Amino acid sequence: MPRVLLFQANALKDYMVRFFTHMGVPAEDAHIAADVLLAADLRGVASHGIIRLHTYYGNRIRKGLIDVHSPLQVIRETPATLLLDGGRGLGQVVAYRAMQRCIEKAREVGMAMVTVRNSNHYGIAGYYAMMALPHDMIGISLTNSQPLVAPTYGRKAMLGTNPIAVAAPAGQERPFVLDMATSIVPIGKITVYDKAGLPIPEGWGIDSSGKVTTDPKAVLKGGALLPLGGTALMRGYKGYGLSMVVDILSGVLSGAAYSIEVAQPGEGRPANVGHFFAAIRVDALRPVDEFKADMDRLIRMIRESPKAEGEDRIFIHGEKEFENAERYAREGVPLLTEVVKSLREGGEQVGVPFNLEPLGEREAELDAE
Amino acid sequence: MPRVLLFQANALKDYMVRFFTHMGVPAEDAHIAADVLLAADLRGVASHGIIRLHTYYGNRIRKGLIDVHSPLQVIRETPATLLLDGGRGLGQVVAYRAMQRCIEKAREVGMAMVTVRNSNHYGIAGYYAMMALPHDMIGISLTNSQPLVAPTYGRKAMLGTNPIAVAAPAGQERPFVLDMATSIVPIGKITVYDKAGLPIPEGWGIDSSGKVTTDPKAVLKGGALLPLGGTALMRGYKGYGLSMVVDILSGVLSGAAYSIEVAQPGEGRPANVGHFFAAIRVDALRPVDEFKADMDRLIRMIRESPKAEGEDRIFIHGEKEFENAERYAREGVPLLTEVVKSLREGGEQVGVPFNLEPLGEREAELDAE
Repeated sequence: MPRVLLFQANALKDYMVRFFTHMGVPAEDAHIAADVLLAADLRGVASHGIIRLHTYYGNRIRKGLIDVHSPLQVIRETPATLLLDGGRGLGQVVAYRAMQRCIEKAREVGMAMVTVRNSNHYGIAGYYAMMALPHDMIGISLTNSQPLVAPTYGRKAMLGTNPIAVAAPAGQERPFVLDMATSIVPIGKITVYDKAGLPIPEGWGIDSSGKVTTDPKAVLKGGALLPLGGTALMRGYKGYGLSMVVDILSGVLSGAAYSIEVAQPGEGRPANVGHFFAAIRVDALRPVDEFKADMDRLIRMIRESPKAEGEDRIFIHGEKEFENAERYAREGVPLLTEVVKSLREGGEQVGVPFNLEPLGEREAELDAE
Repeated sequence: MPRVLLFQANALKDYMVRFFTHMGVPAEDAHIAADVLLAADLRGVASHGIIRLHTYYGNRIRKGLIDVHSPLQVIRETPATLLLDGGRGLGQVVAYRAMQRCIEKAREVGMAMVTVRNSNHYGIAGYYAMMALPHDMIGISLTNSQPLVAPTYGRKAMLGTNPIAVAAPAGQERPFVLDMATSIVPIGKITVYDKAGLPIPEGWGIDSSGKVTTDPKAVLKGGALLPLGGTALMRGYKGYGLSMVVDILSGVLSGAAYSIEVAQPGEGRPANVGHFFAAIRVDALRPVDEFKADMDRLIRMIRESPKAEGEDRIFIHGEKEFENAERYAREGVPLLTEVVKSLREGGEQVGVPFNLEPLGEREAELDAE
């Protein structure tokens, strides 16, 4: 079983701030980028956290594929809509500022949307949707990403895992936060099975001929992920359709890249990722306290509904992640030993040594995505 | 094999207009309701078409559960948002007028959304999303519906099949039109298997203990449909999450019923269905011709991408339905003989005899939803 080292959350964030600052990112932006990456690790979405610090962000900054100044530019604006050019900036910084403006615009006219072109990988989609919550707004965040998913009846990866995130405030209960890839699983999940020498469940992916396979290597080498739903019989064309919607709203509508033209992380060209954000002011529709009381009620009705035989809990979206965040803030954020090793190596190379003392060590719990 | 009779599309619409008018629906509204129902039959979504004329709409009008005057009332309004009370009106009429206002508001401020409470079943979600297309807008249409779907790890139907429809205009190509239930299949599909004495594919539904079953009767009697994705292993909690989003945006945000409080069609109380609509003016973000050219390009890239072994076509969402509509406009709209029989009986009862001459007869093609 792989092991993890536990680190204090603030220490990890400080390290990332120092790293980004060292790479030339302005201080305020370094804090934003570090906070988004830390949020992923805290919420248990390690694939989108500090693991990418050197491999994705560091590499692309050094190659000049990410502009550390994240120069945002307004291209078109109406009272309820805004198109921004992300200036090849840090995805997190671009997305954070775009969502900020979206919230400001929603405050004025009730709801608003922002699309962004010319950006980079922005981390977890849910972060930006959740920015709406303290403002008593519903937040939506979509982004396209490099091609990994085949359309139904196809065999080539033509679409990204294009996530959909929606956050809605509740009262006594925690907010509802859906943050999902439109594929069944992310590519990292296939890699985990491959490294463990295990077959993948039937339906997650296809080989290069387009047939469903249980061999993770066949998916990774010339195959593709299947969209949510899986095969046509299980209505995988719905997941494929949702992925198209994300690509249309974030890629086509912004003038960013789409489909196979979104660059792979390792490619030496700008990614030109597109994002879409929306914010809805709850009190534009209903008194906030009534809305929140009904959210609480809906959440409790679902949670307390009868369980399937052998199950004892129904989860509301976001619950597991909030529980992870509370636990990791207390016990320390778990990082796989191999991730820590690569952080130490990467830190040496760029001159920002990763010299944090772990709080402890334990076996990894590999049920999170 | 069941057989169908073929009817001229306009003749069916005329009949429905006469029926609604006879029931006291104002002439203009009767045309709207008939057009939405006909669109379902034309597009190959017979479950949402004329089959419900007497059984759902007629019955509920007679019982006073649908107010034939569909008295819409504005509850709250901002430049980009609107909350309407549907006054227990005909779902089609309420939804049509709500989407009309949504489009008008989007014209003013770039994009807009409308939520509706106190409505009824509105037919196919895609109809209202598609209303945005002639205005060079992207349209979105969501609605909650009576409980049929169990949350992941649950065994009771707590959520509707809550559909998501998104329509985006293209140039040379047909528009992209996603119109999907957030369950794997609609309940009508289970009924079809039950009537045919066939087992359902594993994963579509659960029995009353919450176990996946291939027995359609077990799903229909105390069981439930599974959300898109299916089991937890196949990430059914994503489909469950999407269903929650639809219920939050159309039910909770409008102050309509939600979860198990949305009435079943046969229940003797108002359904209090909630809807959500949005419209985005393409030219608020990009020049329309550029957007359409990119939509054409995206559609062609996907369609022309390599096919899985044994497959020769990748479908874009909406394509099959447009082809159905063209064919049925030419050959006649197919109605199952048993549906025709019940239309004749229902027509006799209410004094609007269904005396249309069929154009022909043939075997049914039961691959549509």
